[in-house]
Amino acid sequence: ATTFLASEHQHIRYNPLQDEWVLVSAHRMKRPWQGQVEPSPLKTVPRHDPHNPLCPGATRANGEVNPHYDGTFLFDNDFPALQPDAPNPGPSDHPLFQAEAARGVCKVICFHPWSDVTLPLMSVPEIRAVVDVWASVMEELGAQYPWVQIFENKGAMMGCSNPHPHCQVWASSFLPDIAQREERSQRAYQSQHREPLLMEYGRQELIRKERLVLTSEHWLVLVPFWAVWPFQTLLLPRRHVRRLPELTPAERDDLASIMKKLLTKYDNLFETSFPYTMGWHGAPTGSEAGANWDHWQLHAHYYPPLLRSATVRKFMVGYEMLAQAQRDLTPEQAAEKLRALPEVHYYLRQK
Amino acid sequence: ATTFLASEHQHIRYNPLQDEWVLVSAHRMKRPWQGQVEPSPLKTVPRHDPHNPLCPGATRANGEVNPHYDGTFLFDNDFPALQPDAPNPGPSDHPLFQAEAARGVCKVICFHPWSDVTLPLMSVPEIRAVVDVWASVMEELGAQYPWVQIFENKGAMMGCSNPHPHCQVWASSFLPDIAQREERSQRAYQSQHREPLLMEYGRQELIRKERLVLTSEHWLVLVPFWAVWPFQTLLLPRRHVRRLPELTPAERDDLASIMKKLLTKYDNLFETSFPYTMGWHGAPTGSEAGANWDHWQLHAHYYPPLLRSATVRKFMVGYEMLAQAQRDLTPEQAAEKLRALPEVHYYLRQK
Ligand SMILES: O=P(O)(O)O[C@H]1O[C@H](CO)[C@@H](O)[C@H](O)[C@H]1O
Ligand SMILES: O=P(O)(O)O[C@H]1O[C@H](CO)[C@@H](O)[C@H](O)[C@H]1O
Repeated sequence: ATTFLASEHQHIRYNPLQDEWVLVSAHRMKRPWQGQVEPSPLKTVPRHDPHNPLCPGATRANGEVNPHYDGTFLFDNDFPALQPDAPNPGPSDHPLFQAEAARGVCKVICFHPWSDVTLPLMSVPEIRAVVDVWASVMEELGAQYPWVQIFENKGAMMGCSNPHPHCQVWASSFLPDIAQREERSQRAYQSQHREPLLMEYGRQELIRKERLVLTSEHWLVLVPFWAVWPFQTLLLPRRHVRRLPELTPAERDDLASIMKKLLTKYDNLFETSFPYTMGWHGAPTGSEAGANWDHWQLHAHYYPPLLRSATVRKFMVGYEMLAQAQRDLTPEQAAEKLRALPEVHYYLRQK
Repeated sequence: ATTFLASEHQHIRYNPLQDEWVLVSAHRMKRPWQGQVEPSPLKTVPRHDPHNPLCPGATRANGEVNPHYDGTFLFDNDFPALQPDAPNPGPSDHPLFQAEAARGVCKVICFHPWSDVTLPLMSVPEIRAVVDVWASVMEELGAQYPWVQIFENKGAMMGCSNPHPHCQVWASSFLPDIAQREERSQRAYQSQHREPLLMEYGRQELIRKERLVLTSEHWLVLVPFWAVWPFQTLLLPRRHVRRLPELTPAERDDLASIMKKLLTKYDNLFETSFPYTMGWHGAPTGSEAGANWDHWQLHAHYYPPLLRSATVRKFMVGYEMLAQAQRDLTPEQAAEKLRALPEVHYYLRQK
């Protein structure tokens, strides 16, 4: 019988955090690509555009004028998907027709006053300032809402409609679907194994090494065993931390530094400003924040769409939408590629 | 207190088939769109291109020459994600690192000898021939494999790498993730309510009417109460049918006719060849095919990405990837728009 080789032989892997399976078919990278090629990202973004509503001093859709901020800038999203006061849809008349109330707030965080930078091109102290805003907005909105989703959509390919470096925060009166799944999985793991799922997972990856991308005093970055997106990564603190605001000053500095390294590697992979969706998951907040959430471990997911080059992405369509996620290179291959990349940004080397 | 209006007030809805929630924020359609605009689809596809491996008489990647087929044409995918003979990854050494064997076959079905037609531009008998191939490939591969996923990726936007009208069939030795979820939900519903979930759901939608798009003697098309994609639809037989091969000749003719109507409406919505992923779900097959699968009802899902125009799509990114699906118009609004569209293709009206 042939010996199993993950990079040669298709197989399925289980995601214990979100209770999902992925089909790994690494031999598929051999097929030629004849499909859609994405437009190259905008080469030149002006540093300051008075008509860009995210810029310092610009006028927003609601008529408000932004301050001439010189660091980060937090404000209410002018087109929020969640508003604080929607009425309740009322009781359901049938088990197949269930609707529930949804309330919340949506905010935007500008990372920097300049439109022509991205996180990997910012300094570590500038990134540290972003980490501090994340922690404080989590604290502020978490006082009221059970889930505060901080996420960054980077790149036009990811539906990001503004090149100015920014992220969003959507706080909701309900635990969103994926949060619910992670809650169930982590709770079940803790009750069976008496330790948090992601603490044990991080420890195992430190031993196994083949999926590690970066490690630092307080953090690790790895391509999860069950990664779906080609270069997906998971960013984990080494210490058991349930939520962003619990991070110590040293852990925050170290986070800024490891994020800069990871995002530099990402940009270096295809020598492009690497598009992705990223976001933080931690223990639920709101009125139940005081309950026992020790089964939760804080983490960030990075989901980048590119597969082959700066303009050829992975399409999660067809089989993926109807049956199961499928990936075209192994997580170990992805980790190896990312590990090998320099920690100096190609843009700075070119200069 | 304000009266709840689904089209004005955000709320969440439950998908009982796939056990997921969606955030409905219809007021979001009011925001201006400044994000990525998709390239317009290719205007002219040549009817016959000898270099296109899907055309009659063309040579494929493996050197085989296609027959000069004049109807449908079924063949093995030259770059299959699933192969019949992959070795087993062996037992897992840790509950967080679970991999399992995956075996299967991947096939391609050309719908028509011409590259410049799509299903809505084909005649009802031509579409009926496609239905018959679907049923027979399901029968053939279902004899061996527990899940046979028939799916069509239409349009470059959906990662479709070849404009020739075709679909794919991936048969697997495992029940894929989404099939497992539908299996669990339908089984639980049947055991609690003593009838198939989708039979009751179809009956309810026929009474409620507001989400119906098309009805015929044997079929219905509706925008599900829990739809995620802007113009997502569900195609259901009226009779309790577990799998495609069980369809009677009359049901197959009627299916061809209602598909032509639905896809014509889709194309008419933005006067473009409407991109989508579609596929069939029915009771599992393979060695367990003889078990009791009465809780299953055959259905097709249509997942089209367009939201505002032929070039502005919905991006399922950020919040959607990290927290929960979110839609920008209500399913009722989508159904109303689709209902109002003509059943004559804009392309034929222009001629
Ligand atoms: O097989 P194709 O059409 O080349 O590829 C397309 O469909 C596959 C199955 O849904 C996906 O895995 C690919 O990402 C997509 O580009
Ligand atoms: O809010 P934005 O950046 O305009 O919009 C983007 O992010 C949202 C939240 O992830 C998504 O719902 C939209 O589809 C996407 O285009």
